[in-house]
This record gives sequence, structure tokens and C-alpha cells, in this order.
Amino acid sequence: MSGGAHTGSILTIDLDAVAANYQTLRDISGSAEVAAVVKANAYGLGVDRVAPVLNDAGCRTFFVANIAEAYELRSLIPPAEIHVLDGLMGQPPERFVARNLRPVLNTPDEIETWRSVSAESDRPLPADIQIDTGMARLGLTADEAETLLARPDWNREMAIDCLISHLACADEPGNPMNARQRDAFAKLMPRFEARRASLSASSGMFLGEDFHFDLTRAGVALYGVNPTPDTANPMAQVIQIQGEILQVRFVDTPQTVGYGATHRVTRPSKIATIPIGYADGYPRSLGNTGIAVIGGRKVPVVGRVSMDLTTVDVTDVPDELARPGALVDLLGPGNDLDDTAARAGTIGYEILTRLGSRFERRYIENGNAGPA
Amino acid sequence: MSGGAHTGSILTIDLDAVAANYQTLRDISGSAEVAAVVKANAYGLGVDRVAPVLNDAGCRTFFVANIAEAYELRSLIPPAEIHVLDGLMGQPPERFVARNLRPVLNTPDEIETWRSVSAESDRPLPADIQIDTGMARLGLTADEAETLLARPDWNREMAIDCLISHLACADEPGNPMNARQRDAFAKLMPRFEARRASLSASSGMFLGEDFHFDLTRAGVALYGVNPTPDTANPMAQVIQIQGEILQVRFVDTPQTVGYGATHRVTRPSKIATIPIGYADGYPRSLGNTGIAVIGGRKVPVVGRVSMDLTTVDVTDVPDELARPGALVDLLGPGNDLDDTAARAGTIGYEILTRLGSRFERRYIENGNAGPA
Repeated sequence: MSGGAHTGSILTIDLDAVAANYQTLRDISGSAEVAAVVKANAYGLGVDRVAPVLNDAGCRTFFVANIAEAYELRSLIPPAEIHVLDGLMGQPPERFVARNLRPVLNTPDEIETWRSVSAESDRPLPADIQIDTGMARLGLTADEAETLLARPDWNREMAIDCLISHLACADEPGNPMNARQRDAFAKLMPRFEARRASLSASSGMFLGEDFHFDLTRAGVALYGVNPTPDTANPMAQVIQIQGEILQVRFVDTPQTVGYGATHRVTRPSKIATIPIGYADGYPRSLGNTGIAVIGGRKVPVVGRVSMDLTTVDVTDVPDELARPGALVDLLGPGNDLDDTAARAGTIGYEILTRLGSRFERRYIENGNAGPA
Repeated sequence: MSGGAHTGSILTIDLDAVAANYQTLRDISGSAEVAAVVKANAYGLGVDRVAPVLNDAGCRTFFVANIAEAYELRSLIPPAEIHVLDGLMGQPPERFVARNLRPVLNTPDEIETWRSVSAESDRPLPADIQIDTGMARLGLTADEAETLLARPDWNREMAIDCLISHLACADEPGNPMNARQRDAFAKLMPRFEARRASLSASSGMFLGEDFHFDLTRAGVALYGVNPTPDTANPMAQVIQIQGEILQVRFVDTPQTVGYGATHRVTRPSKIATIPIGYADGYPRSLGNTGIAVIGGRKVPVVGRVSMDLTTVDVTDVPDELARPGALVDLLGPGNDLDDTAARAGTIGYEILTRLGSRFERRYIENGNAGPA
């Protein structure tokens, strides 16, 4: 939107960190191949910039949510192996065939549709099948799987690439549901005669080798979210959000700050206003709760976050640091994605995918920072 | 992003309702002119579609947040009178002059900068001045205003268009802060010798004629949010969010639904999965809390909202309505913007401005629906 004009808000995206995270996830995945999940515009960070970096890092297999995302990715990385998690979505299967996309077939009907188009093709067409082992969201139920497998010719004229399932509680290593899902998956796996098996996304990779199977699916960890919330984050941080101070206000008792007058100053205070608000994806729930960093010092967000503006208390920051034009970190070192999400009452995934379009986006690549 | 491909999610934006809301706000504003606030991409609904409709409805004066938004609006509506709320933001004032933009000057420094560029111009250049009467966010403090006004020539070579302030608690008609802000504003107003005075945004207009002054600023009410939360919504609804059912799952005890296994079914159930998640701006906080409407029946969101998918319990909905491909309202009649926001623990403003880019956007205009 900015057309080169100034918005006073900067989102820096470290593509080198994305590449490093991909390597970390390869190391943890052992002999399993690591696919990259780049749905939702690469979790909000820009699939046009992220996917080529992953491709350069050696990633050959990608997952997206729907066919629209698959079309975009196909144009970005022509030779990519692209899997579509939401399946056929009632679309003509020819649309998938024409662009060499592999739908994740989630229902008996989808499997039958694909089998029939595959039968008419000159070669068996590859697709994935998802079986549900505990999400109750997408994929065949245990009963549907049994009914399907009871038909001797169910897969005769199609090529089952990945058998897929998805863990519900992978970020809780002690949750017995993980082993139950793994065992249910492992038991069904050989019966599907799929080329490969894939169970784990980011957190699942850290549950141990018996969760890796043939292909792991690296999603949110690529983008810096901690896949192991109970222990230190093994991933490099990818994003930083900064705003330029518009104005520093001197406020004294009994004045209040912001909508609803929710923050009442208790001493002579300096309040800095920053042109980032919830329209930019800085959650409104961070009002009177968020943290900003200026000159290495943590300062509190005071008052409600408004649509385009956030106010922080810089009373204890020297004037030469807290001045109009100075940059304030709303998310960055010392106040990272997971910290910010926790304060906002959500998870890093939601912060990432709801980042707004008004930021000046700067990408760091091969050690160099530059505009988008 | 979709390039015409299918995402299974539809955001319908009723531009006729926006025009009707503008008329409603004109009626309530009496003799005051009603400006439209179209910052944040017209509160997420698409300034390229919304601004021309407002222009056709007779709106001549627009407010945006920053210069980037002003550039875009200038290209959309060349003759528009455009005011920029965040002020100069450290940018060369010539950038505002060249495109005939009126910055809202928020500090003594900005006023001095504008005065000096205006003095070098062949005519006094119009700009607004904001005085803070209770937000402590942007604008001159009372002390700064007095210091400024004490200088006899402070405004000699510039044209003060609007004197602006902003109410902190306008959605609470009984809050004494409203009258205090109004009185402080009215007292300073004549001393600034501005052409016009503007205090109220959407909610403020409903506080009565003595809050209208010369110009009101219609923002969120244009887009359907109730500006009078304590009484019935006088505005027409503008947005509807619908998703196509991907799959209907049969789930029985002791199974759970979704991440973290937070929803445990208590009877044989049908769960419909819809391809809309928090990456689309459907808040994660609606997990186990949101409401969907299918065939006129309200059904609960069950389990966590995930990035690309939401699950609803359709056990009590006949199979012919709850089938793959059927449309489910996640926000619409019977479950409107304010209802949804309240369930999510936020306000309609945040829902609007964080709507994602993955929807198929359909605009209703002059009674006709069509794609974007």
C-alpha cells in the first residue's frame, strides 16, 4: 500500500534465520525429509520471499492450505512438489492435475473422485491421504479407513504418495495422546501402501525419532515460534517490529491515557506515541499489558492499543533516546514473538499470520537488509 | 492472492450499506459536515472500493492515518480533501504540499515546520491542528497550546483549517469526561482562529448537537459497528463471513476435537470443518466460544480455532443442510460484527481491520453482488 511513502512502522523479516531454522529442523529430523509448510502467505511473512529461500536451502516439498495458495507457489517455484492440505474442496480435480498439485484427500468421496480421474489418466496420479487419529478436523475416521481398505481395488489406479495424519497435542511432550496417535498411525500405515508416511509438524519433530516417519512438515518453527514451549527455544528469531516515535507527551496526575481512560498516571510521566496499532496486527489485548524496548530498556504499553497508535511510558528513558523519530521495538530481542503472544493471550502463530499490510517490510537475506 | 482460484471462504462487503450508513450519520450530524475516516484500508474493507462509494454519496472530506494512505486515496479520488491524522511524521512537508494533503499538526515543532514552508509558499497552506483534551496520545497539551497562542504571530503565514480533538470515552454517554473534553475544546477553539472545529467521531455524533461543531468524522459506524453500544445499533450491517463445509465428521465419545483436545464430545456428534481460521482474521479466542449460523440455526464453534480451519458442531442440523460444500455463516445476520467481537473479547474495530487476504471478496453495490 505504501508506494514508497512513509508509515513509521517497520517489519523486519530475517530470511537467513528462516534458512537456519530449516537446517535446524533437518538436523532434528534425522533421515526423514523435511517439507516446508508455507500456507497463509508463509505464516504472514510473504511466500514470495520465503519459499525461494527455503528452496535454496534444499527444501523440495511444500505444503499449502488450498488451491489458491498452490497456484501462487507453483508460479514462484515451478519444480516444487506441492501438497494441498484442504484437499479438493469441491474443485474439479483437473485443476490439480494441470498444475501437478498433490491434494491431501480427506474423505472417501475425495478418494473416489481422484481414483476416477487417475484411471482416465495415462499414468497413476499422485495424491496424499489423510487419516484422522485425534483432531476430528480433516481426514478419514477409523471406520472410513476400514471400509475403504476392505475394498481390494480401492487404490488400483492411483498413486498414494503420503499417508498423513496430524498430532493434536505435540507441544505437550508428556501428553499420552501423542503416543496413541503415533501408534494408531503406525498400525494403519502399511495397509495403505503409501509411498511415504508423514505425521509430525514442528513440535512433533521434537518428540523423538519414532514420530518422524518419512517426511516431517516444518511450519511455525521455521518462522521462530518455539516448538518446545517447555524448554528453551531452539529456533532463531525471524521477525522484529519497530515503530518511530511520533510524539512524546508530558502527562501529569490526574490525567489518563487513551480510550476508556484505562491508564491513570500516578506521577509526572512521559508518554511516547507510536504509529502501530491493532490494524497492523499488534493485538488490542496488549493494552496496559504489552512491553516495548527502547535503547535496551523495557518500557510498558500504557492505555488501550488503538487502531493505528500505541502509547508507551518512557518516563524512565533519557530524552535523547525517547524523542520523535526514534525507533521503538514492539517485538524483537528481549521481547520476542512467543513473549509477545503470551502477553496478548494467544500464540505466536496468530501474531505472525495477522501481521498487517501497512508496515514497511524489510527482508534480511545473505546478511543484507533491504526493502521488500 | 487467489488469482481466481477457490479458497472456500467468502467475505461479502455491502457497499450500499456503507452509503446508507453515511446518510444516517449525516442525518444525526445536523448542519455539521460529515467526513469519512478511511484509514487502515477503510477499516480493512478496501479503500479502493469504499472511498468512491462515499464520494458518490456526497462525502468530500476524508481522514487517513498516514501519508502512505493519503497517497493511495489521492490517486483514487483526485479532488478529495484529505486530512492526515498522524501529521508530518518527520517527512518533508513538501510531500504533503505537492499532493494537496492537510496534515494534522500534533506538536509545536510540526506547527513551526508547516508555518515556515507555508511562509515560502505563494499562499497560506492549509493544515489542521490537534489539541489533546484527554487522550494523551497525539496533539498539543494545554500548556503547549498556551505557549503557542502567547506568540502573536504564531499562525501568521499559515491557514488553520480544522481545530481537532478526540474523545476518549464517547461510547459511554454517561461518562463525565465527554463534557469535560467538549468544554475544554470549546474554550480553546475561538483562540486558534481555525476555519472549522472537529471533535467527534462515530460515537461522539450521538452525544448530541453540542458535540458536532463544524465537522464530524465518521469512522467505524460507516462499517456497521454500533456507535451506541448501550442501545440498539442504528447502523446497517456491512460484512458477512461465510465458509464452505469441507467435511462433516462423525465423532463419538471419548473423542476430542482439535488442538489441545479442548473439546470432548459428550454424545455421538457431527462436526463440520470450515476453511477459515485465525490467519483469515477469525480470532483464535473464538475457540469453544464462537457461533456459526447454518440454515438459520445457530451452532457452536467447538475445539480451538486453528490457522486455516474452524470446527462447528452440526449434530442438530439436518444432513441436507450440513453437507460438504454448504455455506456456513461465521459472521452475519443473527451473529453480527459486534456479537462476534464481544464473544472474542474484543471490539468490532479489531475484527474489521484484521480481516485476512485469503477470502474471496464479494462487493454488493447498487443492489448487485459481484466479485472484487
